[in-house]
Amino acid sequence: MTLARHVDALRSGDQDGRALGEAMHAVMGRLYPICRSITGDGVRATLDVLAESADIQRRSIPSGTQAFDWTVPDEWNVRDAYVADRHGHRLIDFHRHNLHLVSYSVPVRATMTLSELRPHLHTLPDRPDWIPYRTSYYHRDWGFCLADSRLRAMDEGPYEVVVDSTLEPGELTYGELVLPGSSTEEVVVSAHICHPSLANDNLAGIAVAREVARTLASLPSRRYTYRFIFAPGTLGSIAWLSRNADVLPRVRHGLVVTGLGGPGVLVYKRSRRGGAGIDRAAAHVVSRRGGEIRGYSPYGYDERQFNAIGFDLPFGRLSRTPHGEYPEYHTSADDLSFVTPPQLLESYLALLEMMDVLENDRRYENLSPYGEPQLGKRGLYPTTGGKQATDAVMAMLWVLAYSDGSTSLLDIASVAGVDFAGLRGAAASLEAAGLLAAER
Amino acid sequence: MTLARHVDALRSGDQDGRALGEAMHAVMGRLYPICRSITGDGVRATLDVLAESADIQRRSIPSGTQAFDWTVPDEWNVRDAYVADRHGHRLIDFHRHNLHLVSYSVPVRATMTLSELRPHLHTLPDRPDWIPYRTSYYHRDWGFCLADSRLRAMDEGPYEVVVDSTLEPGELTYGELVLPGSSTEEVVVSAHICHPSLANDNLAGIAVAREVARTLASLPSRRYTYRFIFAPGTLGSIAWLSRNADVLPRVRHGLVVTGLGGPGVLVYKRSRRGGAGIDRAAAHVVSRRGGEIRGYSPYGYDERQFNAIGFDLPFGRLSRTPHGEYPEYHTSADDLSFVTPPQLLESYLALLEMMDVLENDRRYENLSPYGEPQLGKRGLYPTTGGKQATDAVMAMLWVLAYSDGSTSLLDIASVAGVDFAGLRGAAASLEAAGLLAAER
Amino acid sequence: MTLARHVDALRSGDQDGRALGEAMHAVMGRLYPICRSITGDGVRATLDVLAESADIQRRSIPSGTQAFDWTVPDEWNVRDAYVADRHGHRLIDFHRHNLHLVSYSVPVRATMTLSELRPHLHTLPDRPDWIPYRTSYYHRDWGFCLADSRLRAMDEGPYEVVVDSTLEPGELTYGELVLPGSSTEEVVVSAHICHPSLANDNLAGIAVAREVARTLASLPSRRYTYRFIFAPGTLGSIAWLSRNADVLPRVRHGLVVTGLGGPGVLVYKRSRRGGAGIDRAAAHVVSRRGGEIRGYSPYGYDERQFNAIGFDLPFGRLSRTPHGEYPEYHTSADDLSFVTPPQLLESYLALLEMMDVLENDRRYENLSPYGEPQLGKRGLYPTTGGKQATDAVMAMLWVLAYSDGSTSLLDIASVAGVDFAGLRGAAASLEAAGLLAAER
Repeated sequence: MTLARHVDALRSGDQDGRALGEAMHAVMGRLYPICRSITGDGVRATLDVLAESADIQRRSIPSGTQAFDWTVPDEWNVRDAYVADRHGHRLIDFHRHNLHLVSYSVPVRATMTLSELRPHLHTLPDRPDWIPYRTSYYHRDWGFCLADSRLRAMDEGPYEVVVDSTLEPGELTYGELVLPGSSTEEVVVSAHICHPSLANDNLAGIAVAREVARTLASLPSRRYTYRFIFAPGTLGSIAWLSRNADVLPRVRHGLVVTGLGGPGVLVYKRSRRGGAGIDRAAAHVVSRRGGEIRGYSPYGYDERQFNAIGFDLPFGRLSRTPHGEYPEYHTSADDLSFVTPPQLLESYLALLEMMDVLENDRRYENLSPYGEPQLGKRGLYPTTGGKQATDAVMAMLWVLAYSDGSTSLLDIASVAGVDFAGLRGAAASLEAAGLLAAER
Repeated sequence: MTLARHVDALRSGDQDGRALGEAMHAVMGRLYPICRSITGDGVRATLDVLAESADIQRRSIPSGTQAFDWTVPDEWNVRDAYVADRHGHRLIDFHRHNLHLVSYSVPVRATMTLSELRPHLHTLPDRPDWIPYRTSYYHRDWGFCLADSRLRAMDEGPYEVVVDSTLEPGELTYGELVLPGSSTEEVVVSAHICHPSLANDNLAGIAVAREVARTLASLPSRRYTYRFIFAPGTLGSIAWLSRNADVLPRVRHGLVVTGLGGPGVLVYKRSRRGGAGIDRAAAHVVSRRGGEIRGYSPYGYDERQFNAIGFDLPFGRLSRTPHGEYPEYHTSADDLSFVTPPQLLESYLALLEMMDVLENDRRYENLSPYGEPQLGKRGLYPTTGGKQATDAVMAMLWVLAYSDGSTSLLDIASVAGVDFAGLRGAAASLEAAGLLAAER
Repeated sequence: MTLARHVDALRSGDQDGRALGEAMHAVMGRLYPICRSITGDGVRATLDVLAESADIQRRSIPSGTQAFDWTVPDEWNVRDAYVADRHGHRLIDFHRHNLHLVSYSVPVRATMTLSELRPHLHTLPDRPDWIPYRTSYYHRDWGFCLADSRLRAMDEGPYEVVVDSTLEPGELTYGELVLPGSSTEEVVVSAHICHPSLANDNLAGIAVAREVARTLASLPSRRYTYRFIFAPGTLGSIAWLSRNADVLPRVRHGLVVTGLGGPGVLVYKRSRRGGAGIDRAAAHVVSRRGGEIRGYSPYGYDERQFNAIGFDLPFGRLSRTPHGEYPEYHTSADDLSFVTPPQLLESYLALLEMMDVLENDRRYENLSPYGEPQLGKRGLYPTTGGKQATDAVMAMLWVLAYSDGSTSLLDIASVAGVDFAGLRGAAASLEAAGLLAAER
């Protein structure tokens, strides 16, 4: 089945997408309990799960390796971490929720009063039942995150404070999947895998990217080569960039995917230059789905690295409600219930539609350009006149009116304000009738 | 009288335009009963009426002639057509309303029950008292259109069904009027003449175009050559295009006029490229009259043919409420009462204003460019200072501020958001005062 | 203190600006009673007051001198002017308000009935207690302006009518202040000084320009050379233009300031071409202050002369509520109470912010362009991750993301929708950290 047919089948309801939504949510359920960070066993365990259904290659970079302005840090792993009262009762327990421990906390074993401990405790007073997510990657420190209601119930102590972590030379790990196409030009999709038990940010991005990769892998052919990168945020993409100088010139379109399971509308963030092919494809798809198109901003996820001046790659970003715009963001409330199969499915579909545009956008030449060709004698026009045109007829007329060899279907969709997939179908009909020829 | 003076006189009320509106409506009254189609006696009868007051040349193209992708069909004429009950009473009678017969119906003479006849009957259930307009030009068929209320009153029959039509080799006929100007560059105005008893679509377009042609013919001189084409829709314009390859390179501006008598605001539809001179002139006039400017779309009237890629002519379209946007469209309710003289007059005036722009838009050079010239000593400025400027003074200041030899009056009107005619008058005053020179 | 620090101190409240607002209002109080016109003693007296605190040079041009299309007129001075009743009681008295006399009134000494006098009287029937402002510079005439309520109380007379004025060869006078900078390229600020007792138009412009000049004079260095022109409207700027042909090629940015003390929002009027550097700087500052940006129009103040085609200088205009848009305009109600110190202060600050942009807008080159540099190890980033970025971090990220050597801070401010001063500060921090280099 071609990508076009797959997209049309899902959009028309000929294929029921619900199973896809459920499958993506199920993978998230398996990944949710794992404690991930920018390095460590959790990243490898996550890649193992992903590798079960796709040929994802694991890459490792030793601690201490320089990557542009950055250095791969020591690897961080945690055996245990807790704060217990004098009866040995664990009031804060890493094994109950991995957000309880500030990521990259150094080892600690001490007895402290609450006053001594307090500077190491992080809460959200406005959301007294939620645990915040905090990190301290590059400043050696330690800390615990907890519900503010829990903090208020704590007396002066003393408490037993244990962080049984290791911070030792190891590696930075990321996964990579390449699906070759007719062209060596690449479409790169990147998802970050460094967040612990947070569902929307970014297990949703991981699950949707994995499903899209599976779909693309199943196609009989692809126009572009597709590359999926599953890497820790910031350092992971910078490391990838530092090791793939030969690939960069072939990157034609790039996309960072994250937060694809939340309840908000789709939000596409443009590449830094703002007018790249991926921007036009995404703007078409997302705006027709009622989503939002935003300009570039240098804050966010790994699009910051790919778009950096030295690389200047055309990477956009697709999310549902973006970082910081929903109260559950970076808290324990971003859990599996926050992310639903239908929301995952719509994100998946939007991504496929974008790839449908990338794969099938072409310039055509109208072979009957002197006035409108007589569609009726080719069975492409209603026989009784006097009524208004149907959508299918309109799509053919748009394609004929603008296919001058230098205007692509997406250009026409933009001028006409109509759907790309409809024009793609019209072009196929017209090509079959000998009225249109694809430019090479 | 120059066009500029004629326009100014009508706009200021110095000349009462009501007689013009009445005259246009009266011509429509004469043309309304005639049964027109894309070929046949009705087209010729219509051209005969138009030729009474303008030197319209009749052109004929034999059936079977090829015109690009199209072939001139057999000529269609009707002597009689009806459905009568067993008492000979005509329930549907072409002679009562020519919309009753589907255009291009083949001959029929049969006795049929309602069940047999039903597939050949067209009604508008939502508008039970109106007769729809239907055609079957290129698919040999026959049918009757009638009010849905009439259909509901019919019993099972049997009925006598007669279509006494001929469909035989003949000709396609169209009319053409050329008014030579100082330049051989042409402004082409096209109106379709293939619709039977429908008033707004397009007797209004025909009547307004005829009146504009009469006005232009009466001028002592014209900058452009004007060509008016009165032709059947689609095939007529394609046929004209196929026979005028030598004219096409001289077509500088083009306009399709249709539906100019209805109650809606003026609507201008841009040419396919969207930024042609006619687009700018029309946008200025129509927007200042509270009308609407729309982008090109490949559906509509003959602008589809003129704008086709192979010709790429800059044709816009002027209408009042466009096709399909008023319930009376293509029904018997589009009658003479739907179209009023004041609405026809405004369309006529808008067209003249557009031609005023085309004729009089020029680039000027400010001959006193070092600071503002002292208008007061030339009698062009109020003597008492301290108050705000009048419109006439403002128009002069705008012309002086931007007349650098490469900015035209229409460019200035667009920047300033002021009326072209006011700038045209200001330029004349400044030229007379020696402060401005027209570029050649 | 640099301009940047001065602006930051006033904006942050570290320096209290209230004294500046009061000082500007106090100067206006001294200038208000003087009778100014386009020539005469009042202009010289005004320049004398301004020269007390700034090195303003006085320039004189003899009556009869030709300046492009204009001629310097005779100089006008007034000793006395009144209309008195038969008891010698002055009903209209120039010494009570100088608006009572039409500017440039020729000498008169006559006894007249009200009927004879009436054509020489100007009132505002809609504002019965206000005296209008009227001039008759180029048409030799005389007249009195008075409250309409006063006119209604006058009987038929007769009246003694005296205009004891002189209109004799003399000079046109204007003032000029030049503050040299590192570059000989100039920023020109022009304020008109020809209006009599009118506060907003234009004592406010004069007072604010004087204060800005004092501030710029106090700086240790300036990028541009600054030139302030205090000249009579129209003729003054045309005369200046006629005598400074050598300066014109060096004028990089120009600004007309007027009406800077009224209650309305800031209004910036673009230069004729509309996209000049001053337009971009002003649009940034004024729109962020909730003000309004307007296109050029050839009516207004001296921007008409500077922007004239023959000079084509990029002069914008800054006002609060512009001419003709407030009822007090050109009446006795435009007095010192209409103009307040806080409104003057905001105008002053807006002008300084614009000059901060002109002085400090630069292109930088990101010296660490391969991905985001690690700001944390340079102390420029919060150590605990997981929260949203601060404004200061965002400003650094914007500067890094776009500083490709050809994009200036103002370009970035425009793309980012952030404040120029914030980016200026971020660039300084990044330059200090070795991450950014200014282009030369």
